[in-house]
Amino acid sequence: MADSSVTFADVEAAARRLEGIAHRTPVMTSRTADARADARLFFKCENLQRGGAFKFRGAYNAIATLTGDQRRHGVIAYSSGNHAQAVALAGRLQGVATTIVMPKDAPEAKVGATREYGGEIVFYDRYTESREEICAALARDRGLTIVPPYDHPQIIAGQGTAARELFEAVGELDILLVSLGGGGLLAGSALAARALSPGCRVIGVEPEAANDGQQSFRAGHVIRIPVPRSIADGALTTYIGASNFPIIRAWVHDIVTVSDRMLIDTMGFFAERMKLVVEPTGCLGAAAALSKRHHQPGQRIGVLLSGGNIDLPRYGELLRGGAGAVT
Amino acid sequence: MADSSVTFADVEAAARRLEGIAHRTPVMTSRTADARADARLFFKCENLQRGGAFKFRGAYNAIATLTGDQRRHGVIAYSSGNHAQAVALAGRLQGVATTIVMPKDAPEAKVGATREYGGEIVFYDRYTESREEICAALARDRGLTIVPPYDHPQIIAGQGTAARELFEAVGELDILLVSLGGGGLLAGSALAARALSPGCRVIGVEPEAANDGQQSFRAGHVIRIPVPRSIADGALTTYIGASNFPIIRAWVHDIVTVSDRMLIDTMGFFAERMKLVVEPTGCLGAAAALSKRHHQPGQRIGVLLSGGNIDLPRYGELLRGGAGAVT
Repeated sequence: MADSSVTFADVEAAARRLEGIAHRTPVMTSRTADARADARLFFKCENLQRGGAFKFRGAYNAIATLTGDQRRHGVIAYSSGNHAQAVALAGRLQGVATTIVMPKDAPEAKVGATREYGGEIVFYDRYTESREEICAALARDRGLTIVPPYDHPQIIAGQGTAARELFEAVGELDILLVSLGGGGLLAGSALAARALSPGCRVIGVEPEAANDGQQSFRAGHVIRIPVPRSIADGALTTYIGASNFPIIRAWVHDIVTVSDRMLIDTMGFFAERMKLVVEPTGCLGAAAALSKRHHQPGQRIGVLLSGGNIDLPRYGELLRGGAGAVT
Repeated sequence: MADSSVTFADVEAAARRLEGIAHRTPVMTSRTADARADARLFFKCENLQRGGAFKFRGAYNAIATLTGDQRRHGVIAYSSGNHAQAVALAGRLQGVATTIVMPKDAPEAKVGATREYGGEIVFYDRYTESREEICAALARDRGLTIVPPYDHPQIIAGQGTAARELFEAVGELDILLVSLGGGGLLAGSALAARALSPGCRVIGVEPEAANDGQQSFRAGHVIRIPVPRSIADGALTTYIGASNFPIIRAWVHDIVTVSDRMLIDTMGFFAERMKLVVEPTGCLGAAAALSKRHHQPGQRIGVLLSGGNIDLPRYGELLRGGAGAVT
């Protein structure tokens, strides 16, 4: 056992709480993607999840397991975007007031959606201020409970329900490729894989410029990096969570990286061939699969498309620039 | 009965031929779309069909019903794009050689995909040459059978299988909104609606600048217009087909138009809120629904998203320009 209090039983409990509330997102396949990767790919479409990303699963589960007193006082969260929307939406659905601390340069689509879901937004500067400190001060002053984006047992358990559904839908897999930011989705996915497909290699995928997870995995302890710059705005975390790392260390098989160029090409592939909008962070696993660097020919590979939230002008700009490398 | 040899029995026969070959495309819903339209919308995602559009259904069905001699000689088709890909793919799957006459300004994505599917391409100038004449001459010289894009009983029957699947999936509807170019999808959909949801109003939707269908419908006979200009490149037909018009006149309830601006906004809506790439022509029905001009509050409305094939640079450009009106 990993030195962690989260187990697959918590993932199962989260799945029961999310039943009929989170979408059971579709698993899509593509002959063209299979031909390019020389493998059989199963894309779990969390870009079609409520709030546009897997984050809704963990946020809803975390709020659902608070005490009545905590729920009455309300919750606060910090997020580069998708977790913010998720907490705002999950709070609204459960009648819990939400305050969200967001970077000033968060995509407009994410800010707008968070506001639309009823979240109160407090902005900070990603490059000069600490979101944790701002969040902690507000929580103390207003009596709010913090719902962290990834370093929390109930967040990990909730995120694990996506991989659980994937295995239920397609059976055992040779490899599971998972976007890696702070490690909520990766840790939860590893718990699900271990229980439902024990022979499956679980691989976290990071942007090259944000490879704190890979460094930590190799070093055997959590390594912090300066705020990275990548188009994968959901993976700009600077360290893996303390609850997440022991699970990742115990049950994840490797952590690999892809370039921003590969993310743009993959985003174009999804738009052109699969008619799906996937945000750069959501393309991490697919980019690793299409690179053919981490699997053998013919293997069955699960890919978690973690989200699809991206400002349209930004998306349009990347597609225009990226098209040449895609077609 | 309409003065036509196509009936719902032909749609049923086409459905049997397409079973296990065409995708049974998903029907998607969106709380946000429902709120904006003040109705319950069911989107039949033919952008996720093989070849990226409903056109595969008709093309496959038409080729499947040729004689052995016709199949040995090969087929020829003219198309602004999606029909071309569809015929090339349907031909390849059935071992029939295909020649495609395409406008020089057809989207690069469509030209590339047609070539990739094995079609031989012959280009013409949309504004100065007649594709019918070029096609007829090549057919005569090479002994090819013409698979027209819409004016053909087996094309109409094949296209009708999309609406048939929609009614099977969601039951009866109050309204069905269908993209209208030459009338293959609309005529086939009308046959399916009449059989499976007799109380359903079937409405064809055209670009404002290409309203030959609306003019013809009101006049009671086919009216030809000069080549129109619209971003809906799949609806730039200049007249409704002779096989299609009697069915449309008999069983379609109205033909309405939407502006190019509405198409761009709708395309942005699909990208931002539903994470789907839908080409401008594919947005015709949804734009009409979101306009709230053609239905009563709370009605159940089927919308055929006819296709998702669009050059990425063009798509990116439209999303960048269109974003302001969407968010």
